[in-house]
Amino acid sequence: MMKAHVYVTLKASVLDPQGQTIHNALRKIGFADVTAVRQGKYFALALADGLSAGAAGAEVERIAREVLTNPVIEEYTYRIEE
Amino acid sequence: MMKAHVYVTLKASVLDPQGQTIHNALRKIGFADVTAVRQGKYFALALADGLSAGAAGAEVERIAREVLTNPVIEEYTYRIEE
Repeated sequence: MMKAHVYVTLKASVLDPQGQTIHNALRKIGFADVTAVRQGKYFALALADGLSAGAAGAEVERIAREVLTNPVIEEYTYRIEE
Repeated sequence: MMKAHVYVTLKASVLDPQGQTIHNALRKIGFADVTAVRQGKYFALALADGLSAGAAGAEVERIAREVLTNPVIEEYTYRIEE
C-alpha cells in the first residue's frame, strides 16, 4: 500500500503560542536543552493500489496545497512512501 | 543547530473521527485515490548546540514519551536532524 505523509507547519513568521507553551512547560520540568518548540499537524494518507508514483505525488501535492494547508499562515511538506 | 522532529499519532486501534472527516471531504471533492486518512501531531524541537547525538536522542525520547504522547491512545516516532 502506498502511503503519503503530509506535514503542515506554521510559517516561521507566524507566532506559535501552543509551541511556546510546550517549550515553557519543558523548561519548567527540567528539559533545558530544548531552545524552541513549534507545533504542526501531521496527516497520514493511504493511497489506492496501482497509482503511479507520479500520479500519487501530483494528487498529494494538490491535497496538501488546496485542502490541508491555510496558505496565509501555513506551509507544507510531504513524503510518499511506496 | 540540531533539530528533532516528533510525530505523535493515534494508535491504529483508536478511532480517528477528524481523519475520517477529512477523508469524507476529500472524496466529496473528487480525490478518489485516497483510501484512508489519519491525523496526528507534529512537533519541531530546536536543541542546544553542543549536545551529543546520543544525549539528544535520549532527551527527545523522554520528551516524546513523557510529555508529548498520551500512552493510552497515542504512539510516537521521532527523528533527529543534525
